[in-house]
Formats: sequence, C-alpha cells, structure tokens
Amino acid sequence: MTDPTPAPTPHTPPQTMAEKILSHRGHHTVYAGQLAVVEVDQVMVVDSIAQSFIERMTRDLAAVPKFPERVSIVIDHVAPASTVSVAQAQKEAREYAQQTGVRLFDVGRGICHQVLMEEGLARPGWIVLGSDSHSTTYGAVAAFGTGMGATDIALAAASGKIWLRVPESVRVTFTGDLQTGVSAKDVALEMIRRLGADGATYMSIEMHAGDRFTRGERMTLANLCVEAGAKVGLVVPGGEILTDYGYDVPEWIYPDDGASYVQQIEIDLSTLRPRMSAPSEVDNVHDVADLRGIKVDQVFIGTCTNGRLDDLHAAADVLRGHRVDPTTRLLVIPASSQVMEDAMADGTLLTLIQAGAVLGTPGCGPCMGRHQGVLAPGEVCVSTSNRNFIGRMGDKDAKVYLASPAVAAATAIMGRVALPEDILNAG
Amino acid sequence: MTDPTPAPTPHTPPQTMAEKILSHRGHHTVYAGQLAVVEVDQVMVVDSIAQSFIERMTRDLAAVPKFPERVSIVIDHVAPASTVSVAQAQKEAREYAQQTGVRLFDVGRGICHQVLMEEGLARPGWIVLGSDSHSTTYGAVAAFGTGMGATDIALAAASGKIWLRVPESVRVTFTGDLQTGVSAKDVALEMIRRLGADGATYMSIEMHAGDRFTRGERMTLANLCVEAGAKVGLVVPGGEILTDYGYDVPEWIYPDDGASYVQQIEIDLSTLRPRMSAPSEVDNVHDVADLRGIKVDQVFIGTCTNGRLDDLHAAADVLRGHRVDPTTRLLVIPASSQVMEDAMADGTLLTLIQAGAVLGTPGCGPCMGRHQGVLAPGEVCVSTSNRNFIGRMGDKDAKVYLASPAVAAATAIMGRVALPEDILNAG
Repeated sequence: MTDPTPAPTPHTPPQTMAEKILSHRGHHTVYAGQLAVVEVDQVMVVDSIAQSFIERMTRDLAAVPKFPERVSIVIDHVAPASTVSVAQAQKEAREYAQQTGVRLFDVGRGICHQVLMEEGLARPGWIVLGSDSHSTTYGAVAAFGTGMGATDIALAAASGKIWLRVPESVRVTFTGDLQTGVSAKDVALEMIRRLGADGATYMSIEMHAGDRFTRGERMTLANLCVEAGAKVGLVVPGGEILTDYGYDVPEWIYPDDGASYVQQIEIDLSTLRPRMSAPSEVDNVHDVADLRGIKVDQVFIGTCTNGRLDDLHAAADVLRGHRVDPTTRLLVIPASSQVMEDAMADGTLLTLIQAGAVLGTPGCGPCMGRHQGVLAPGEVCVSTSNRNFIGRMGDKDAKVYLASPAVAAATAIMGRVALPEDILNAG
Repeated sequence: MTDPTPAPTPHTPPQTMAEKILSHRGHHTVYAGQLAVVEVDQVMVVDSIAQSFIERMTRDLAAVPKFPERVSIVIDHVAPASTVSVAQAQKEAREYAQQTGVRLFDVGRGICHQVLMEEGLARPGWIVLGSDSHSTTYGAVAAFGTGMGATDIALAAASGKIWLRVPESVRVTFTGDLQTGVSAKDVALEMIRRLGADGATYMSIEMHAGDRFTRGERMTLANLCVEAGAKVGLVVPGGEILTDYGYDVPEWIYPDDGASYVQQIEIDLSTLRPRMSAPSEVDNVHDVADLRGIKVDQVFIGTCTNGRLDDLHAAADVLRGHRVDPTTRLLVIPASSQVMEDAMADGTLLTLIQAGAVLGTPGCGPCMGRHQGVLAPGEVCVSTSNRNFIGRMGDKDAKVYLASPAVAAATAIMGRVALPEDILNAG
C-alpha cells in the first residue's frame, strides 16, 4: 500500500520525521504549522466508537469506505459484551463489516493497536488513524499513528484522505543502557514526567533510541506519548530492529540533521530506576522505592501499553515460584490472541496462574473501567496501563498507580507496592 | 464434619436416599412429607447474594456464623466485577469474610459448585445449602445439596441448622451404555424431557447409575435436576467411583429396597442420541439431528453444568485441527482455576485457542447474561449451560439452545447446529 511517489526533492530545508512522513503521504513538502492533506493507509475503528462511525458514514456522509481494505474494526474495548446495548453495537459492527468488506477483528482477537501491528496494518511511513487515543502506538514502527473522533475517522474512511496541521516536534534522545529490572515502561513514564502531561500538546515526540528497544518496547514508548499530549510519537528506526521484523524501512523516512525542534531532551537510561505514576495524573511520576508499602487490592497486567509476550515474561520471571498475596487480586490479560497463544505455548501463562494470577479474555480488560475488574470505592490498583485519572478504572474514589509488569508482579506478591528486587532478594 | 451419631435403628420402614440423609443429619427417622430439622454441613453464598446475606446476618438477625468453617462465599457470578456496584458488593463480601472467618473464594477461583467440590466441601451424607439454584450439583457425591434464598441461608449460617420438608422421591434408573459422542449432558436433558420442567417439583430425583459416570458426569446429572423442579438430585454411589476420589461413603446412605417413590422411570442409555434443549424451556428437548443447520452466532462452553476438564477434552477432541466458523464466536470458560490449570498443563486449552476459541476468566461467564458474552437482539447461542429461558443470556429476543460440549464444539466449527460426527466424518 506504500506509495510509489518519489520522496520530495533534495535542497529543501531539513525535516523532522513527522514532516517527512506527511510530505511523503501528501505528495507535497510541508513543515510544522502548515496544513497537509495526506493519504490514509489504515483507518482503525474500535467497538465503542463503531456505532457513531457507522452513523456518520451511512447517515451523515451517505458514503461507503473508499478503500475497504484500509479500514479495520476491532471489537476490543468491552469484549465479550457486558450488556445488551454493547452486544447490539458489536452486532451492528459485524453487519457493517460484512456489508462493506472492511476488516473485522472480533471478540478475543485482542487490543486494536496490538492486532493491527501483528497483522502488518501499520508500517514505516504509513498514516494510521485510529478512533482510540493510544493510536500513537503505531509510531513504534515509524508510522504516523494518531487518534481522532468518529467524524474525522469517517471522513478519512470515505475519502481515503485526511487533513492535518503538521505538528512541531520534540526530540528525545536516549543514551546509556537500562539497568536490570528497569523497562521501557519506566523510560516512558520518565519521559512523561520530564515533558509534563501537556508538555507536547499536538506535537510529534521524535524518539532517538538507536538500536535500543524491541518492537514491543517501542510500542510502549510510542503508546504513552499521548499522555504528554502528543499528536504522534515516532521512534526513529535504528539498527536492524524493524527490518528484523520484516518491515521495509524507506530511505527517506529518517529525520534530517538540522531539523527544527521546539524542545530537545536527553534521558540517560543508565541512571533510571523503576518508576510509578501515582494518582491521578500520568505525569505524577515517582521512584517506586518512594511509594513502597502502599496496600494494593488489585494488580492488572495487560493493555496496549504492556500486555505483550515480553511483558508477560517479565511478570513471570518475578512471580515464578511465588504466590499472589491472598488480599490482592492479580488480573493478567494478554493483549491479543496471538500473545495468549504464544504465552500458553511457552509455559508463561501456566507459571502465572500457578502463582495465582487470574487470566482474562484478550482485549482492553478493565483499563477503562467498563468490565472485567472495575474498582470499588476506596480500592487501590497497580496497573501496567496508561491512565490513572480519577474514575478511570471504576469508582471516583478508587486509586490507580501505573507501573511496569515487573513492578506489578512484585506488588501482587507482596500485596503492597514493591520492587522486583524485594522479591528476588527475599528468595 | 460428619456426625458420629449412629444410623437410625433397623426395623424402620424402607427409606429413599433423601430420607436417609435427612434422618441421619436430623438424628430422627423421617419420611417424605414430614418436617426435619437437620444440621447443615456447608452454607454456600455467591457474590450476587452476598450483600443480602450479610444484611440478614448483621441487621435482621444480629448474628455471626455459628460455625464459620461451614460457610463459604464464592465470587463467581460476575467476576471480575463489571460495574462499580458489583465491585462494591464484592468488596463487602471480602470484608465480611475477613471479619467473621468464613471462607472466601475470590475472583477467578471459579464457579461455586465446582470450587466446593474441589475443596472437599461437599461429601456423601452432608447437607449443603447454596444461594444458587444449581446447588443440587452436590448430589453428585450423595450430598443433600439444595438452593435457598438469602434469608434461609442466613438462618442456617446463624444457627447451624435448617428445617426442611422431607421430599418425595422420583427414582430414575439408567440401563445400557452410552454410544460414542453421547454424554452425561444428553442423559440429563433426556431425563428433564421425560420428567418435564415441573415434573419433579420439590422432589428428590434419585438416580441409579451403578458404576456409570465419573464425578464430573454425576455433577452434570445432579446439576440439571433443578430444571425438573427438584429440591435435590442424588446420584446413588456405585462401584468405586466416589471412593476413588477419596470420599468416605457411609454404609447407611444407600436407599432401601422397597422405599417409596412417586414415580419410577428407566432410561436406556444405549439408544440415546445427542440431545438439545431448544428455546425457551429446558424440557423442550430434541434430537440434535432435528435442529441441524440453525445458524448460530455464539457458542459457549463452560458453566457448573459443563465447564470441567472432561468437558474441555470433549470439545478439544472435536475442534482439534479445525477452525471456528468466522461468523461464529466460541467462548470457553473453565469452571475453576484448577480446571484452567489442568487444561493448560495438558495442552487442551492450546488446542482450543488454536482452533479460534476465546478463553474467559473461570466463573459463571455469560450464563446469566450479566457480562462476558451477553447476547444482542436476534442472536442465537448454543450453550453447554443449564437454562435457556427468555432473556437468560441477554436480550429477550436472543435464543439459547442447550447442548453437550461435543455438540457445542461441532456447532462452532460449522457456524450452525451440528453433530460431532458431521465434523469427524468430514475429516
């Protein structure tokens, strides 16, 4: 689906990665602040927005998707259905997919971003629009991924294009290497702390990581960029990371030396310790060590941020041979059916459930507080997800702390906020 | 916990099994129609009744459980919590258990009846009262298991006793042997068809099966007895079935020759074909062959009726090497964490998910239409559960057909009601 149009000619001023992609897919060289009309390579619609999307398409626009193969509907937010009205909306989504030929990923296939990535529906240089704010995740593979509402999504599906104001960019450079027990989630939380919850509003966060981080880790990084307000979070391809996954990385995609950034920050990974975002803002980031001992009722390992095989491995490495504290519940929800199958085949899930973990259907789980682990008033949850706003996972008087899978696993064993080293040192 | 009181003296008129158990636990020889006050060996409270139970105990009776070790609370009906109010009720149940010392089985441990059975909390000759109508399940191990409301349950928990009118008995005798592909579920449906939905109202269905049927199969039989209106469903211990599971089967428990029955029926297992209960009454039972071809949107394998390891094996034997029809969803929910662990360890779950099954958290799942697979208007479900009433699994215009795990699996592959032989013959 990548376009054969040659890259913009040389001798133009240097560009950021966001400018590169929007120029390429708009067939016109653009810079931050300008408007770009670009071709859209994939439109992603989740179950909870599907009814609005279909209404816009059929009633307001009286249109059909221009390129059905470029539209995917994913039933993930409340799957399997928790109420008749949710079931009805999902039924309508299935019928719409059947009528129009758009792709449908049904109950249990997994979380939209994970599924699109597994299916090769986000690729370097692509424009991917999703009806979910964490559509920045596609930046992990250098796709311009961003979230939009039902109306914008519908216009893109109907026309095959979208207009965008070209975002300014923040450049984040990672140096050094992570210590054992510190993960991409900790890096992402530190990045949000440094930038602030509105520090990159409508910007592109362009992450220079060299050949550090797997595709999954890059997804964690790009996913959380929206928590600094970013329009898009682009991890610059480095080394063989993406080509090893079979991606074709176009030559033109790399940001130019001398491109213009509104801010540049550097994060030394070697000094970073496990991080935790305390209630009720994502940028309220602390060292886990400083929050150690807080009593926790529920631990949730999963979501588009941290529900991948590597994340389950990290949790299993801590939980192996231990038991979840009897006063704490540990929910583990793989991000996709593929993750579940892989983690079942390699024994990871057996390790987790033997430790007392409760497994759930691949999908978003309790991340938005709509089913499968809603919190009661006064309850405390440590979650590997991406938002800890008031009421996010249930009652407004529940509290959510965000952390890495390893920290979540250690916390589940202790029943209180803990570091992996607390478990490993204890034997 | 079994009582040392000797069995009632001989020379009394012959007794049914129900009369035997109630006489023993009431320390007084009783017959059908009389009242018995009996000791209660286990009181089981499910999450959806827990709030009412606690209110009765603390507010109306101002009592604490007389024998905390004889009370179990199981969080299974809507677990993990689907709403804040459900979460709040579960939180109160946990707090109550902690305060009173009663046993708590939390989110993901599994369905009440399965869990109590696994934990040895139902035994031959016991009285087990549950706040769930399918508490007849305990009759599988010759326990007098029956369902009651919150008030009765609370009185039993507070006093350690309950009064019961001694039920009349229906004697069901099984002869012959099942053909391949026919299961205890088919037997149970046939039994309900023969008796009718109110054919055994407030009676004991005393099942004489010799050494046929495993413990799990006996659970399926006893479970469905309530669908003929029965107060209790007792499978007479035969051969070494129960002793092989480690149960102590008391000598006195067997029904006497010449005991009085209001009805006696015989079911020849050798002629039985796979059965299916069509909407919207459990006794609307047909040969699956006569319903073949009905389009199905969702298949659900699980519940206290058919969510055990043997059931998952039966489903896997049909699904192995096949794929679920793309227009049908297959939900598989193991009855307990133990079932999930066993089915994961022996590869059954991997076979199921490789065929396209969607796995859910151990518990009741969508059986009552409260979460995890609620049906939309017009949808059709084939379920291994025990009730197909209007609105049971969601919308009042959805339809539920009840069948065995093997039939459910075949149906999932075809996307339409099918027999296992349709798949196996097709290769």
